Amino acid sequence: MNDPEFIVVGAGLAGLAAARALTAAGRQALVLEARDRVGGRLLNHTWSDGHVGELGGQWIGPTQDHALRLVRELGLELYPSYETGTHLAYRRGRLRRFRGETFGLPPWGLLDGLVAQRRLEAMARAVPLEAPWSAPRARAWDGQTLESWLRRHMRTRVGYEFFRAVCTAIFCAEAEDVSLLHFLFYVRSGRSLDQLLRLRGGAQESRVVGGSQRIALALAEQLGERVITGAAVDAIEQGEDGVVARCTGGAVHRAARVIVTLPPPLAARIRYSPALPGLRDQLTQKLAMGSVIKCMARYPQPFWRDAGLSGFAISVERPVNVIFDNSPHGGGCGVLLGFIEGREARALGELAPADRRALVLENFASYFGERARAPLEYEDKDWSQDPWTRGCYGAHFAPGVWTQFGAALRRPCGRVHWAGAETAAVWSGYMDGALRSGERAAQEVLA
Amino acid sequence: MNDPEFIVVGAGLAGLAAARALTAAGRQALVLEARDRVGGRLLNHTWSDGHVGELGGQWIGPTQDHALRLVRELGLELYPSYETGTHLAYRRGRLRRFRGETFGLPPWGLLDGLVAQRRLEAMARAVPLEAPWSAPRARAWDGQTLESWLRRHMRTRVGYEFFRAVCTAIFCAEAEDVSLLHFLFYVRSGRSLDQLLRLRGGAQESRVVGGSQRIALALAEQLGERVITGAAVDAIEQGEDGVVARCTGGAVHRAARVIVTLPPPLAARIRYSPALPGLRDQLTQKLAMGSVIKCMARYPQPFWRDAGLSGFAISVERPVNVIFDNSPHGGGCGVLLGFIEGREARALGELAPADRRALVLENFASYFGERARAPLEYEDKDWSQDPWTRGCYGAHFAPGVWTQFGAALRRPCGRVHWAGAETAAVWSGYMDGALRSGERAAQEVLA
Repeated sequence: MNDPEFIVVGAGLAGLAAARALTAAGRQALVLEARDRVGGRLLNHTWSDGHVGELGGQWIGPTQDHALRLVRELGLELYPSYETGTHLAYRRGRLRRFRGETFGLPPWGLLDGLVAQRRLEAMARAVPLEAPWSAPRARAWDGQTLESWLRRHMRTRVGYEFFRAVCTAIFCAEAEDVSLLHFLFYVRSGRSLDQLLRLRGGAQESRVVGGSQRIALALAEQLGERVITGAAVDAIEQGEDGVVARCTGGAVHRAARVIVTLPPPLAARIRYSPALPGLRDQLTQKLAMGSVIKCMARYPQPFWRDAGLSGFAISVERPVNVIFDNSPHGGGCGVLLGFIEGREARALGELAPADRRALVLENFASYFGERARAPLEYEDKDWSQDPWTRGCYGAHFAPGVWTQFGAALRRPCGRVHWAGAETAAVWSGYMDGALRSGERAAQEVLA
Repeated sequence: MNDPEFIVVGAGLAGLAAARALTAAGRQALVLEARDRVGGRLLNHTWSDGHVGELGGQWIGPTQDHALRLVRELGLELYPSYETGTHLAYRRGRLRRFRGETFGLPPWGLLDGLVAQRRLEAMARAVPLEAPWSAPRARAWDGQTLESWLRRHMRTRVGYEFFRAVCTAIFCAEAEDVSLLHFLFYVRSGRSLDQLLRLRGGAQESRVVGGSQRIALALAEQLGERVITGAAVDAIEQGEDGVVARCTGGAVHRAARVIVTLPPPLAARIRYSPALPGLRDQLTQKLAMGSVIKCMARYPQPFWRDAGLSGFAISVERPVNVIFDNSPHGGGCGVLLGFIEGREARALGELAPADRRALVLENFASYFGERARAPLEYEDKDWSQDPWTRGCYGAHFAPGVWTQFGAALRRPCGRVHWAGAETAAVWSGYMDGALRSGERAAQEVLA
């Protein structure tokens, strides 16, 4: 095979979208993927009966136009996430039933939450997505943690705890890990807090029939031999004529330019020659991946629906923060999906698998009854243990990072360009953002 | 050469101290160093006339017992840092002269600073050095940036700015980069804020005749062939029988255990097999190096002394935060040393070398007159550009890191043990801490 014009490191959505755009422009691109599969943070799981679920990212929602268009173009189908019926919330030893978006909060907590939401949304509107550091109050907002803001502005304990849970649900990181400016950027990047949190009308609205990884698999199929799996890029050397990418196994690829799509903390682990500028290197030192264990249990039927329950349950006090009905399209079985996030993910990450399974099922049973304790199958994935991802959903920005290092996020370093969900201005951290970032990087190298 | 019992990665003070302790115990250790020199963040610079200065860490002070003892044992000599005369502070367009430790602050700013110092010192005393996360108020202190605390508690603008400058002087990072808990840990680790900041009686009290790197050079000389330079460890594989360390050039070394002494963000860039536990990996994602450019200018004489000036000058408004008389032992020439730290280091790191030199000398001249503008020689080093360090003085902890990830800082991962100045409980971040950490890790692998 002749040398391609462009090398893309990573066959997640960003890398595949970049290669697709380059190919569509009639140019040659080669995607190098460390894993023996494509999809990155998208990962289907096939149950023993043939049904498919996802251990990685899975949802698509309105305004995620790049993802929606791609799904259509690939001939894939979407179906709505299930949310019919009554939701559950556990708090202070009691199970509370609720509908709509009250999250089971008492009236004063709800009011507190709504006031805070309005304030945060108003602040978020002042954050320029392409340059959050240029917001009028950027220094002040980036000088503090989200936790500091919540401690100062929330008037009720439940409202405070609710927003902490919102933070872990969005970032898989605690409110003390995240800069207030980053939280505001992220809210604006995903349109609004409501849109980030909602199923219907929000980022969790739709699922892909057959599992979200099918998007990546379909893209890879179109790219054919242009995607090489099991090719971990270890070193990237830039010269006057082009770049050389060296893989751990010894394979060497040459091209004019390279697009690195790995999350910044992992992009840092490639050896670059000449060394990257200090600002870029230090940016990658500053960004860290969230912590999450995604847990799924499969049952003969979604039995909770018979009891009028939606399968959606939340608690700020329990290791499993949030639970969804994640049953596959077309019925045939029922699946509950639980997220263990942030601090809890690290605590439960230390447990033996059997102990973690028991604890999660105990949690499920506390909402949905004893039948939930005995699934046909159980599967979970702690993304911090995955050597090619090292945490999910993505990398978050601590205080001071956007205002001091943000300018290096997308700025190319010679012939090395940067993509990945973290580099997206719109829908940063989501599949849609990953696609946008890959397309943006493809335009960059073509220009 | 037979396989050693122990491999030490990194020939900075931590690694050399570990190898020394192992050798002293009659055991075989091999030190692998990526650079073509030993010393890590210690780096002598020899001026054209043969005088020696330091572009890296340089000072030793009281209670740094491990460093003081080692200097004595190696037959090296210390001499006092120069601080005779009047100090200078630039603020609001005016140059102010001061003596003692008022830092040129007006009385109300000084009072504000002293009150804050007392509060912070009292809080610091509640931080257990071996486990900062177990401080009674750890969660609250680790939930906020130092910046948030300063905004809330400083009563004057000058006091606030002064403490921000203290932060950059200590960490080469801004107050928004650093967790309040980390600041308190660091203050206690270095005994007190006074001790961190002082020359006489503090961490900047003494210098090593011939330059601080002589400590590393002397240790390496004693270790002889046990130190291999130009050996960048790229991968570490653990098996049942021991470890294998692979270097980029292809060299392979085997041992029973390995001590990795790199700063955590750089230790993350080694490929470990099997992959390290998620908690450890995410800790390394969370720690980042500070940003500093160390600048030195050599003159025929320390002419400022004739004017009654100590050579010590500070400003929170200028790119060069702090200036010292850094003339070599025994006279013969005069050297001014300036530190550009944190945000300023990144701004000036983007300048062409000649422009940066001009700006620094302009700064020197504004304190010490026109003669300072025309040195015999000028030299600076931006540590963020150094691929084997990627920032100085060391790694700092953002909010949430100590309380969520701190337990992984020193915890061995199978046959892989951790040392380096960042892992020290006492004098963390200093030469003394580096030595303590190496000695501690040596005891660990021997046990």
